[in-house]
Amino acid sequence: MGILTGKNNVMQACIDACNKCVQACLECFNACLNEPDVGVRKNCISILVECAMMCQMSVAMMSMSAQFSKEHCQLCAQICDKCAQECAMFKDDHCQKCAEICRMCAEECRKMANM
Amino acid sequence: MGILTGKNNVMQACIDACNKCVQACLECFNACLNEPDVGVRKNCISILVECAMMCQMSVAMMSMSAQFSKEHCQLCAQICDKCAQECAMFKDDHCQKCAEICRMCAEECRKMANM
Amino acid sequence: MGILTGKNNVMQACIDACNKCVQACLECFNACLNEPDVGVRKNCISILVECAMMCQMSVAMMSMSAQFSKEHCQLCAQICDKCAQECAMFKDDHCQKCAEICRMCAEECRKMANM
Amino acid sequence: MGILTGKNNVMQACIDACNKCVQACLECFNACLNEPDVGVRKNCISILVECAMMCQMSVAMMSMSAQFSKEHCQLCAQICDKCAQECAMFKDDHCQKCAEICRMCAEECRKMANM
Repeated sequence: MGILTGKNNVMQACIDACNKCVQACLECFNACLNEPDVGVRKNCISILVECAMMCQMSVAMMSMSAQFSKEHCQLCAQICDKCAQECAMFKDDHCQKCAEICRMCAEECRKMANM
Repeated sequence: MGILTGKNNVMQACIDACNKCVQACLECFNACLNEPDVGVRKNCISILVECAMMCQMSVAMMSMSAQFSKEHCQLCAQICDKCAQECAMFKDDHCQKCAEICRMCAEECRKMANM
Repeated sequence: MGILTGKNNVMQACIDACNKCVQACLECFNACLNEPDVGVRKNCISILVECAMMCQMSVAMMSMSAQFSKEHCQLCAQICDKCAQECAMFKDDHCQKCAEICRMCAEECRKMANM
Repeated sequence: MGILTGKNNVMQACIDACNKCVQACLECFNACLNEPDVGVRKNCISILVECAMMCQMSVAMMSMSAQFSKEHCQLCAQICDKCAQECAMFKDDHCQKCAEICRMCAEECRKMANM
């Protein structure tokens, strides 16, 4: 229902999912950089940064009830899905968990986009 | 404790407080723009945007364990305090609640900065 | 041609246009807040912030050669066009100039998106 | 002198330097990820993202004449200096050029902070 005002549940769930995804992606970015096989993770590392930035953008747009909030969420869903795919390729715990969080975020973003 | 990895409780509390503050500030920004006395709110409206951007920056820096996370939190505390002051001048519900959320965020940021 | 590496001319022109648009929108945001008729400018003020954030996002995505750079530019073009419309409604110099810069940015973003 | 309004030359030079630094850091981030010795570049890759985000933040704050613009520039100078140090350790062209751009940006940020 929003923090101050009456945000609907779909938007609040999407904001929460995006916030979680930002943190997961940037934790995973840092963890990937510290893995011994960092050399094979370049696509993953790059999209993790992209996904984190996109999710922060979506949070900002929804919070301020921006005119293009839904379009941001639609693009955010695509990026989260792609990020989930890249993370899912790696067997370590942080990538597996991050992939799951990205998928859940993509789902919430699609709900917002189709509202 | 972090979403994927072992973030300590002080950092996680600060990330959560910053996320809440981002949303509160941008909801309050939008609400202030729709008040009949928007003309006297220019300082408030401006610092709400500044504070939201700063809090998103702090979340990103802490999440990725950036080298200057603490310095960001220190500056974030100052900006949150100033934003709380500006919001507290207005009697409407959204500004009063936002002021309180900014103060709580400032406190968490100071804890992070002094860790 | 990029600063460090071989960015093509279309992308570099788009980055430059977005950077200019960020600054114009945030200068115009500040100037609008200081106008006596700020009360009728709420849509303009809100989309100026949205447009500035979107343009910064597009710059970041293009600079890092992100996978969804073109999709960002496509959305950025839409937001710049809308921002130009809102600004064009006001006769003051800053809004008129900002509208023009937003239109030029939209054009460069469309070129990038269709590359 | 600003795009729309009367920004002074020190601030405009700092905005321009920060914009250049954002692009350089994110190009260098992408180039580092594609180097065969990416495994030894983790500190460099991480601070490049941090520095790019900080410079975008500084641009936004200066453009909107935010209350804490100078504090942002002060922190930005520190981060740019650190990023320059990390980049300077690597002999490839993109890191060497990026280091130089970061140093120039740090210098402009210090001028702004001390204005």
